[in-house]
Amino acid sequence: MVKWFDRTPREVIAPLLRPRHPSESPNRVLLEELSPDRQAFLGQSACLQLSLLDSAARAVATAPSLESRVALAPIVRMVSARVSGLVELLAEHGGDPVAAMRPFSVQTDDFHRMTMGEGWHELVLSLHVTAGLLGDFFVAFAGGLPPADRDRVRLILTAEQGHGLLVAELQRAIDENPRLASRLALWGRSLVGDTLLQMYAAVAEAIGEAAARGPQGDRLEPVFTEIVANHTRRMDALGLTA
Amino acid sequence: MVKWFDRTPREVIAPLLRPRHPSESPNRVLLEELSPDRQAFLGQSACLQLSLLDSAARAVATAPSLESRVALAPIVRMVSARVSGLVELLAEHGGDPVAAMRPFSVQTDDFHRMTMGEGWHELVLSLHVTAGLLGDFFVAFAGGLPPADRDRVRLILTAEQGHGLLVAELQRAIDENPRLASRLALWGRSLVGDTLLQMYAAVAEAIGEAAARGPQGDRLEPVFTEIVANHTRRMDALGLTA
Repeated sequence: MVKWFDRTPREVIAPLLRPRHPSESPNRVLLEELSPDRQAFLGQSACLQLSLLDSAARAVATAPSLESRVALAPIVRMVSARVSGLVELLAEHGGDPVAAMRPFSVQTDDFHRMTMGEGWHELVLSLHVTAGLLGDFFVAFAGGLPPADRDRVRLILTAEQGHGLLVAELQRAIDENPRLASRLALWGRSLVGDTLLQMYAAVAEAIGEAAARGPQGDRLEPVFTEIVANHTRRMDALGLTA
Repeated sequence: MVKWFDRTPREVIAPLLRPRHPSESPNRVLLEELSPDRQAFLGQSACLQLSLLDSAARAVATAPSLESRVALAPIVRMVSARVSGLVELLAEHGGDPVAAMRPFSVQTDDFHRMTMGEGWHELVLSLHVTAGLLGDFFVAFAGGLPPADRDRVRLILTAEQGHGLLVAELQRAIDENPRLASRLALWGRSLVGDTLLQMYAAVAEAIGEAAARGPQGDRLEPVFTEIVANHTRRMDALGLTA
């Protein structure tokens, strides 16, 4: 991890995108050993889910058919439940949810702009890929929170998953127009870089940027390798080269 | 009601917008005596809620501050739960939800375009006004459905109401910039006309257009007067002239 923060997203993800066998070791534990600040964890998660909510709503609003609008509408319900859940958890801890989210507002808006894509298909792939990567990461990272918070967060983030609905829409679109595949494969790769940078920001927030660039950061590399391996499986399932 | 369908929205609503004392008679019963086609009722309601969902998501995405985005996010959750509930009810009756919605797709999209407004404040008022009017109407109109459906629909439409959140945002905006009030008052009046036309379309669908223009339609006028009186109270509460 030493050079994550000095490199471009493409340089960062290049080594991670080489096919590897997922490690046998319980890498998640590495991430769970960190103790993220609860306020920062929830604030960033809430910001990111709010950004996914806008993407989900756009995906419904701009879908090419009434069928697709109706099929994707539940995603909006699921993501908005996550936003509400995280905001409520922040409020229960007596803090101002907006104050907890504000430090992450600009970086999340940038992430949102960069991952919106051009056109509906890129937007839907973005929802599938970024929500998948962020879900894997924050569920693991929550392991370092106090147990009650950890369980609440994991319940909020995993209660309902809409990936099946997104995959069905993408699969149908690719089947109808196979030339979409290469464009979407390229787009998927660019999404990984931008999403990994959000995770590194979360880690740097938790352990300090110096530690993230040092040996402690290095030890975490297998975690990200595993998260990217899950991503590769998601792309494979769509017949897209990760 | 004789001339509703021959008149412009402004002509239609002009007599209804005169202040009146709400009638003492149980006017709702008039609407409940109709027996709407279940498929059409659910299809139109689902289409309208899908349109409100887009408005709600836009209101969150384009809010002028993170505070307002967070404050309004629960509205998206509430409206998306209504969409899901209505679509699920359609599916439970063995039909294709999309087929039930399709006949209302074009008129709902037109309604959506006409009620979107210019800028965030008009959009938020639109959500408050059109969701309020449509909620009052469809809850009453559901009275003519078979009891099990009636109860389900009323539960779906009334489970959670976000009007308090919308009023708080509007009130603060008007307090900060009192000149907004006249523009929003005008906008509120235009919204009533467009929303009433959706209700007339529902009635005409249920009893036939000829009946809606005839004595049966005339008998319903007090229902709409009452619904508009509720609207007037909502506008009054904001200090806006209805």
